[in-house]
Amino acid sequence: MDQTSQKINPTVLDGFLELSPAEQVLFNKMLKTIQETYELFGFIPQETALIEKLEVLLAKSGGETAKQIFYLQKPDQALRFDLTVSLARYVAQNYRSLQFPYRRYQIGKVYRGERPQKGRYREFYQCDIDVIGDGRLGLINDAEIPSVIYAVFKKLGFEAFTIRINNRKILTGFFDSLGISGDLQKEVLRVVDKLEKIGSDAVAEELAGLGIAADTISKIFAFLDVSGRNKEIIDQLKKLGVGDEAFNTGVEELEQVLEAISRFGVPEKNIALDLKIARGLDYYTGTVYETFLDEYPGVGSVCSGGRYDNLAECYCDKNFPGVGISIGLTRLFSKLLEMKVIKPEESTPAQILVIPLDGQLDRAIEVAAAFREKGISAQVYLEEAKPGKVFKYADRLKVPYAAVIGGKEVASGKIALKDMARKEQTEASINDAIGVIKHHHSLGDDG
Amino acid sequence: MDQTSQKINPTVLDGFLELSPAEQVLFNKMLKTIQETYELFGFIPQETALIEKLEVLLAKSGGETAKQIFYLQKPDQALRFDLTVSLARYVAQNYRSLQFPYRRYQIGKVYRGERPQKGRYREFYQCDIDVIGDGRLGLINDAEIPSVIYAVFKKLGFEAFTIRINNRKILTGFFDSLGISGDLQKEVLRVVDKLEKIGSDAVAEELAGLGIAADTISKIFAFLDVSGRNKEIIDQLKKLGVGDEAFNTGVEELEQVLEAISRFGVPEKNIALDLKIARGLDYYTGTVYETFLDEYPGVGSVCSGGRYDNLAECYCDKNFPGVGISIGLTRLFSKLLEMKVIKPEESTPAQILVIPLDGQLDRAIEVAAAFREKGISAQVYLEEAKPGKVFKYADRLKVPYAAVIGGKEVASGKIALKDMARKEQTEASINDAIGVIKHHHSLGDDG
Repeated sequence: MDQTSQKINPTVLDGFLELSPAEQVLFNKMLKTIQETYELFGFIPQETALIEKLEVLLAKSGGETAKQIFYLQKPDQALRFDLTVSLARYVAQNYRSLQFPYRRYQIGKVYRGERPQKGRYREFYQCDIDVIGDGRLGLINDAEIPSVIYAVFKKLGFEAFTIRINNRKILTGFFDSLGISGDLQKEVLRVVDKLEKIGSDAVAEELAGLGIAADTISKIFAFLDVSGRNKEIIDQLKKLGVGDEAFNTGVEELEQVLEAISRFGVPEKNIALDLKIARGLDYYTGTVYETFLDEYPGVGSVCSGGRYDNLAECYCDKNFPGVGISIGLTRLFSKLLEMKVIKPEESTPAQILVIPLDGQLDRAIEVAAAFREKGISAQVYLEEAKPGKVFKYADRLKVPYAAVIGGKEVASGKIALKDMARKEQTEASINDAIGVIKHHHSLGDDG
Repeated sequence: MDQTSQKINPTVLDGFLELSPAEQVLFNKMLKTIQETYELFGFIPQETALIEKLEVLLAKSGGETAKQIFYLQKPDQALRFDLTVSLARYVAQNYRSLQFPYRRYQIGKVYRGERPQKGRYREFYQCDIDVIGDGRLGLINDAEIPSVIYAVFKKLGFEAFTIRINNRKILTGFFDSLGISGDLQKEVLRVVDKLEKIGSDAVAEELAGLGIAADTISKIFAFLDVSGRNKEIIDQLKKLGVGDEAFNTGVEELEQVLEAISRFGVPEKNIALDLKIARGLDYYTGTVYETFLDEYPGVGSVCSGGRYDNLAECYCDKNFPGVGISIGLTRLFSKLLEMKVIKPEESTPAQILVIPLDGQLDRAIEVAAAFREKGISAQVYLEEAKPGKVFKYADRLKVPYAAVIGGKEVASGKIALKDMARKEQTEASINDAIGVIKHHHSLGDDG
């Protein structure tokens, strides 16, 4: 062993979230809920390499992405910054052996080398689902996606959340009809995207700065101000008399998607047509989604995505249209934690700590095995320590039950079952204890 | 959209294993089995950053490790090459808020930048458990660890496997007693480690090359040849009359651990004392483990680990002894796949594909929701296609059941349930279908 006393400072890099045991248990529960819900809808698990060839990563993305990449020392490799690039590469590489529509989910960490800031992480989880078609993919898929989002957030315990929905063609068509196209359109949309953040006066000023005439700015605001229930907005859009084909297609698609979403059982109150939703403009080509928690607007968008015409165009000539969404779980989790919307509780998967007294280890092992046999996580306390210290350990670990096994319990074949929260100890058979713990556990899952 | 036709070749880097949908479903089942078993024993989930400061990674490890590291472009950061370094750093950083014994598991990917070879991956999963004490940790923990290994491999479906066990102090003490110490001892052990690979003649030759006298070499072979049942080996070791204190302590510890392992319910046939097991010599200080599948020796060691005196000595002055093991799942999985020991079957989590005919989408959605309500993964086929094409899709996806919903089924309130493997179609109520699918699924889990 190296006996030098020069110690390396044990720290993790800035922008990397590491959780305490209780937080990690809670995080894993949320992750599992998302995964199970994705699987309930039949999405196939996928796991791509975390390191990609740099040419693959940069095939589509422009300068902004290149700045955020975590580069490896080898100049032709880097860490993935999202899961979509890898999906595109994987589909282009393996489409011959995939079945289409290919419905896959991937839950994994992605890396962005941007300057770490509070609430922005350089390593974070994305939880993605996508449906990819070979050549074509029905618009009906754009309506099923919100039903998956709805199921996920309900199971995560949220009641009040809104999936805002729009169609990129409406935006493109509307601005084209105003003579705002190409790069200028992108710039205008980038400004419009800031409306909620900076307010309409500032947006008007910036638009003027881009050379947009005053009456055009008025038309833009009139368009963005269109509001009401989803159907009312659609009606108003139709009445605007925008003679652009893309615009009209967009309105029609959006109307169909909204109608179909209700057929998938998503309540109308959870869906809002919002003309201001644009999403990464170079990428999406039709339906776009953003999801917000009504009671916690400060969290920002918790799930977003949309329809794209051609997933893998950078890698092959085949046409793969798709639609998908992504949940940024690391950010969602840390925001909810910070706002105390969620609270870490149990610090261990163990439901019971089995404590041998008077050297009754063999019986303690037997009891723990009986619990595990029934799917109850059990830890035997193996160290030599006084009962007071062991109960303190159980308390701090927030394990809900303890079983004390001394000579008396070995003689009776029962256990002394302690409810750690209530500080109540009762004599119980192993079967009774299993019933009590299973009951407690199922309440915890619901509550 | 970029209309250039210059395509980027869609490939993944060498040495990165990406699985087909059916393989991924199977891989995830194994991963879940390992995780659930770790949790059943009360190990706490941990998830550390995948990127660490380089000084943390290289604090303990020598030149060999430095050669294998995946370096980032930023010279002070790199990818983790195992989960133990991060555990050590995390414990040194957070011990004030941890409860000891700290029993944690971590399942995650690690990275080694070595030259890719067949069956060696540069990105692979490690599945680790460790028990860390604050200042001290009872030897009894060394006996519980094999019971976790035993439970994992039983649940993975293996019957015949052997956990080989040894104690580093026996080796150190024995070679010290022969006057072989320090660096020479390390070299000798490295040669001895190759015994099974290169045979005893080659080992004898290499030992002579290191300057070991012929009679000493004979003594080494006599020692390594000690065999028999575990108790017999212990007895023979005691009779060897090695006057070294470490040797005697090692024999005593090993005897105690072997005795206690049986108390944890591990059958004697799954445990073999093997004096040739050494494991990373700079790291372990007591008990060491290697696990082999008896019927598939070509897979090599599938789970290994041991006891270490001081986990975090590079990062702090506090003393954290521990014991742990790691399963290299990526390698195990790919070897078992290659040898056809495991076979990928289902290509989707979906248990049933719900197929609307004659535009009966609303009822199909309702039926799928009823299945999901009962925890059965269901996919609605949303594209417009002829039934023949849809069944081909279901077949290739290896989804076990299909439900056809046409006008007749809407009228009767039933579904046409098709068993895809048996190619049998029956009329069934949704409740009956749920029963059939749950029964099929539970058989699949057991079989």
